[in-house]
Amino acid sequence: MTALSPLSPLAPGKFPEIPAIAGVRLAVADAAVHYRGRTDLLLVELHSATTVAGVFTRSLTASAAVDWCREALAGGLARGLLVNSGNSNAFTGKRGVAAVGRTVQAAAGLLACPSGNVFVASTGVIGEPMADHKITDALPGMYAGLSDRGWEAAARAIMTTDTFPKGAAADTRIGGVAVTLGGIAKGSGMIAPDMATMLSFVFTDAAIAAPVLQELLNQGCAASFNCITVDSDTSTSDTLMLFATGRAGNAEITALDDPRLQDFRAALNALLVDLACQVVRDGEGAGKFITITVSGADSHRAARVVGLAIANSPLVKTAVAGADANWGRIVMAVGKSGERADRDRLAIRIGGILVAAEGMVVDGYDEAPVADHMKGLEIDIGVDLGLGDGRATVWTCDLTHGYIDINADYRS
Amino acid sequence: MTALSPLSPLAPGKFPEIPAIAGVRLAVADAAVHYRGRTDLLLVELHSATTVAGVFTRSLTASAAVDWCREALAGGLARGLLVNSGNSNAFTGKRGVAAVGRTVQAAAGLLACPSGNVFVASTGVIGEPMADHKITDALPGMYAGLSDRGWEAAARAIMTTDTFPKGAAADTRIGGVAVTLGGIAKGSGMIAPDMATMLSFVFTDAAIAAPVLQELLNQGCAASFNCITVDSDTSTSDTLMLFATGRAGNAEITALDDPRLQDFRAALNALLVDLACQVVRDGEGAGKFITITVSGADSHRAARVVGLAIANSPLVKTAVAGADANWGRIVMAVGKSGERADRDRLAIRIGGILVAAEGMVVDGYDEAPVADHMKGLEIDIGVDLGLGDGRATVWTCDLTHGYIDINADYRS
Repeated sequence: MTALSPLSPLAPGKFPEIPAIAGVRLAVADAAVHYRGRTDLLLVELHSATTVAGVFTRSLTASAAVDWCREALAGGLARGLLVNSGNSNAFTGKRGVAAVGRTVQAAAGLLACPSGNVFVASTGVIGEPMADHKITDALPGMYAGLSDRGWEAAARAIMTTDTFPKGAAADTRIGGVAVTLGGIAKGSGMIAPDMATMLSFVFTDAAIAAPVLQELLNQGCAASFNCITVDSDTSTSDTLMLFATGRAGNAEITALDDPRLQDFRAALNALLVDLACQVVRDGEGAGKFITITVSGADSHRAARVVGLAIANSPLVKTAVAGADANWGRIVMAVGKSGERADRDRLAIRIGGILVAAEGMVVDGYDEAPVADHMKGLEIDIGVDLGLGDGRATVWTCDLTHGYIDINADYRS
Repeated sequence: MTALSPLSPLAPGKFPEIPAIAGVRLAVADAAVHYRGRTDLLLVELHSATTVAGVFTRSLTASAAVDWCREALAGGLARGLLVNSGNSNAFTGKRGVAAVGRTVQAAAGLLACPSGNVFVASTGVIGEPMADHKITDALPGMYAGLSDRGWEAAARAIMTTDTFPKGAAADTRIGGVAVTLGGIAKGSGMIAPDMATMLSFVFTDAAIAAPVLQELLNQGCAASFNCITVDSDTSTSDTLMLFATGRAGNAEITALDDPRLQDFRAALNALLVDLACQVVRDGEGAGKFITITVSGADSHRAARVVGLAIANSPLVKTAVAGADANWGRIVMAVGKSGERADRDRLAIRIGGILVAAEGMVVDGYDEAPVADHMKGLEIDIGVDLGLGDGRATVWTCDLTHGYIDINADYRS
């Protein structure tokens, strides 16, 4: 197994308090699928009326688990979620499909539900046959130990090269009824749109019809997980799912434009951004967290493309790693994005300080305060294209020796 | 200035013999534009009937020099080429445009030609005003010292972070008349389509009309410089130019389908691939040279997109750096390319050895010979999509600690 990397310098202080969410029970196990001496399996039992939404990798070589979930999602209902780490069961051919079938069947038997109500996700090495009997062997014990607490343990069980467990929670209201949101995520390489995080699962006790839940998730994902990148690589297993157990007691929401959704939508979106940014903060080898705000683009879409071109540029990311206020590389990245840009209208801010405007460095540019900003852990880059009203915020991390260390030796 | 990096382990044995090319004279100088203690300026005088073709960066924030060349190219004739290293004069606004004007004017005065017959290129740091008086001051001395030899010195004068000078030559015939080709190039970061190398200049004594020369260059570039990548970043200054002095004595070629072009076209294409691959062999931090051959794609274009997705994947490049036969990451890169792929038809070869077929690792897969191949300096990756007849070859290098070292500290 891979030795744990040192804790990311960008890690939050501690795992947040995530309360019990009515209708959700958790269990983890050490099934030794690939890792030794740590948990690698998560089983989530969901109340029988739970609705479900999902967004998956756009990879055309998606894993068997992703294929399964896409199909099962059509039913709109979930009773269980099974996640393993260490082996992604991706590019494992017919054997991989059979392994998904067997694990889903075993979980469905325990949960007494149709297999189409069980969702699965796998993360880890690609292309190695998965010893799924280790998973099915562990399931009965996990089922016996299901509990409504244990979010941090759940977040830990799904980690691969992550250096800290990722979670977030929020309290909000729907039509005067208190509802709770809680979620976990894991990264931390192969992070790029679309999708971004390898795995993230969010749970709420709200009652929301599946089609509405799906649209809420699509919209929230667009401004969170699809606006982060670590290394521009896209996993074959990327999965973001949202489960709503309906146990909070609100009247079920059946329309996306229901005004009672306003607070919930805001809370969900903030929680998704929180989880997505935690993934970036644990990007492989990350030493600095970079927020890139693009304004003045032809459209929001164009702004996002420009932001991601900057965020994915190895030259920008290495400059940040070296605390170098090399705004010329930002210009380069804008230029290669393919979106309309006018060299002589571009303005660039670093740490809020105007560095360049109208195609050249500003008069009397003083690099000292900008250099100070670059020495910090939180780097802000602002680009105004001077063309239109399109805006986007994108998050990434720097590219460091740590990334090379981790990825030149992942399987050893 | 930047200390010279150690010689790339992938460097060719020595600079090739490039003979004099009738109608081409060279001079270099140490103008101290940015670097100290090395040459940084190249002046090329071309015979008055010289035709010219060029392909430039697709960056939308191209440098003032690129803008100038694009415009001057319309005339189809060249009398001079002026190249400086150390400062790219990119994103320098009105001052940058004025600097180009002054240097071109000075060179045109010496060469006694219209300024539109003088081409310029600059490479180096972006966004810093260029002390162009240092260039114009050096020109008279360079003009006095023009010589028909000195190709290696010319190649050295245009280097930035390159660790070796890049050149190539070829002898061929047009309609029974011997003609010569010679070219130089420099890299070595910010290498990605389209364009690829930052700067490359090729010269021939053949007589070829400008429109034909342009089409020959477009076609040759598509299968050479536009099929290489180091880090997926695109320079604002990328320039590839081809000059034909017409001094060899062949009857001028005025049609692209002229059968007398057959040998010349083949020699030019091979020379462009040679120069492009030298740029990759000097990719910043490169430790291994990677050839990626994609077959079975829907089209040649699709094959190139898949090849570049693999070549640009940080996870593939770090795996190669670590000598890890991690074919799962190759599958990942195929999947994220956006081109059609069928997970269960993919075949992957490493070092010619079939590793995976029909969606899974081959029966009885023996990693030992593949691991041996991965330990070498020349890595071959073959991907067959099993869909159609599209083929492409793409070249790149691995992603190493050396890349981080160079780019996290470029300006210091």
